Amino acid sequence: MEFKKYLTEQCALVEQAMARYMLPEEGPLANHIKAMRYSLFAGGKRIRPILALAAAEAVHAPTEHLLPVACALECIHTYSLIHDDLPAMDDDDLRRGKPTCHVVFGEAEAILAGDGLLSFAFELMTHPDVRQGISPVAQLQMINIIAKGIGPVGMVGGQSLDLAAEGQAITFDHLRLIHGYKTGALITASVQAGAIFGKADDKQFAALSRYGVQIGLAFQIVDDLLDVEGTTEDLGKTAGADAQRNKATYPAFFGVAKTKVMAKEAVDEAVNALKIFDAKAEPLRDLARYIYERNK
Amino acid sequence: MEFKKYLTEQCALVEQAMARYMLPEEGPLANHIKAMRYSLFAGGKRIRPILALAAAEAVHAPTEHLLPVACALECIHTYSLIHDDLPAMDDDDLRRGKPTCHVVFGEAEAILAGDGLLSFAFELMTHPDVRQGISPVAQLQMINIIAKGIGPVGMVGGQSLDLAAEGQAITFDHLRLIHGYKTGALITASVQAGAIFGKADDKQFAALSRYGVQIGLAFQIVDDLLDVEGTTEDLGKTAGADAQRNKATYPAFFGVAKTKVMAKEAVDEAVNALKIFDAKAEPLRDLARYIYERNK
Repeated sequence: MEFKKYLTEQCALVEQAMARYMLPEEGPLANHIKAMRYSLFAGGKRIRPILALAAAEAVHAPTEHLLPVACALECIHTYSLIHDDLPAMDDDDLRRGKPTCHVVFGEAEAILAGDGLLSFAFELMTHPDVRQGISPVAQLQMINIIAKGIGPVGMVGGQSLDLAAEGQAITFDHLRLIHGYKTGALITASVQAGAIFGKADDKQFAALSRYGVQIGLAFQIVDDLLDVEGTTEDLGKTAGADAQRNKATYPAFFGVAKTKVMAKEAVDEAVNALKIFDAKAEPLRDLARYIYERNK
Repeated sequence: MEFKKYLTEQCALVEQAMARYMLPEEGPLANHIKAMRYSLFAGGKRIRPILALAAAEAVHAPTEHLLPVACALECIHTYSLIHDDLPAMDDDDLRRGKPTCHVVFGEAEAILAGDGLLSFAFELMTHPDVRQGISPVAQLQMINIIAKGIGPVGMVGGQSLDLAAEGQAITFDHLRLIHGYKTGALITASVQAGAIFGKADDKQFAALSRYGVQIGLAFQIVDDLLDVEGTTEDLGKTAGADAQRNKATYPAFFGVAKTKVMAKEAVDEAVNALKIFDAKAEPLRDLARYIYERNK
């Protein structure tokens, strides 16, 4: 119950920061900014920013000046959703329970809204506010890790692999590779960003990285499960889309029951990676369990 | 003649650095990286990286460690071309004399190649090599200026305005606004990046910024002229595309003769902005003239 309160509070904190940092919908660029804001403020669990904040907390750092980076992570996540949903990609009409960006603003503006959010994320990460809580060298290192995590050998590369694999017979190793890049890389980078911001030492950084990899894995396995078991209403996006697109998933490889066990194992390993931390890491532990139990 | 040699040498320098920093086409992500490399190494004048290097030179800075940033600017420019050429945008089949990225790799992969190049640009800008030539605070400031220049209130916003204006009757002021964002912002940011890297003082930075704005303007005016007067073969992209798309341009507002005068005026103002600099700024002066005289 206490964790639910934590989640609500952190989510509100992130939303407030986004409202503060995001460009206002005015002037000649109002329509472009409106498209970005439409998708950014369409709800969402704000898991990645909350993970970054919780990772910094775990190493006893005050998180106020990490907020621009937390917002940037959500901008990046939102851009990836907008582009993934495009007609040329997954062609999805529904996201976070609302019509997708290209349905409302057209395909061209949706591509640009994604591009704008990605660029703006780096404006936020280099925001002078961040410097109040971190050395400039560490800030550069943090941005580098995020850029790597979302780039060609990260999230974008993973989406490319995912599209190429559609309708193909792929091995489980290849599926793991796709998931690791497409979903895992940004989640891991979010945790690592918080760790760097919080001045984690090498041992702490390694532990938090292990945690990030495992919850990234758990997150994707649960996503695969929800696509099978969830409803479109709960998910806020089209349920059953994976099967319809003939996508390789964990349940397709192992069946639902075994997949659930595998998700639980990933969560346990994530929690286990945190054993060197004290009670300040409790939110991270709870987040791992939450990822397993979520229904959307 | 000497300037032509300079241009060739700088272009080779940038190409070599890109070859060094760009990901190799191997492993499971080979196809994605191939798409990025296809567009990045399709030729191009490398004007933005060369401008950044020349701006640093103008303030007497060694430019070796600026090269990752110079490459990043070309990655950004290339990503913007790939996305602009998409069927949902300008729907162009030809760029730099070759079939566009989406023609060769398909629409989905072209979107991702653009996304990958944009993310990779920030990986390059935060590359540890850069730190050898600049303080980390200045490096962050440089990245912030580039992120702003290419974001919602910059290049991406400009493309959004440009698309919205197609077939519309717009004022000249609005055309200037579009050009300033769409083309001017990245060119200005490139010059400013070089200025910051070279530790320009406030007066030098202001002068170089003025120069950047004016050559950005000249560049776009000449682009408009070339679309009217150039051939598809010379341009390496479809000539006459603006008129066909019913786009507002300088020649459409003022006719070809007056437009040429305006381009020349912008170049003169750019050169004039450099009067506080010594002979080390000669490449920048020559670049301004080159932008006016180019035929592609």
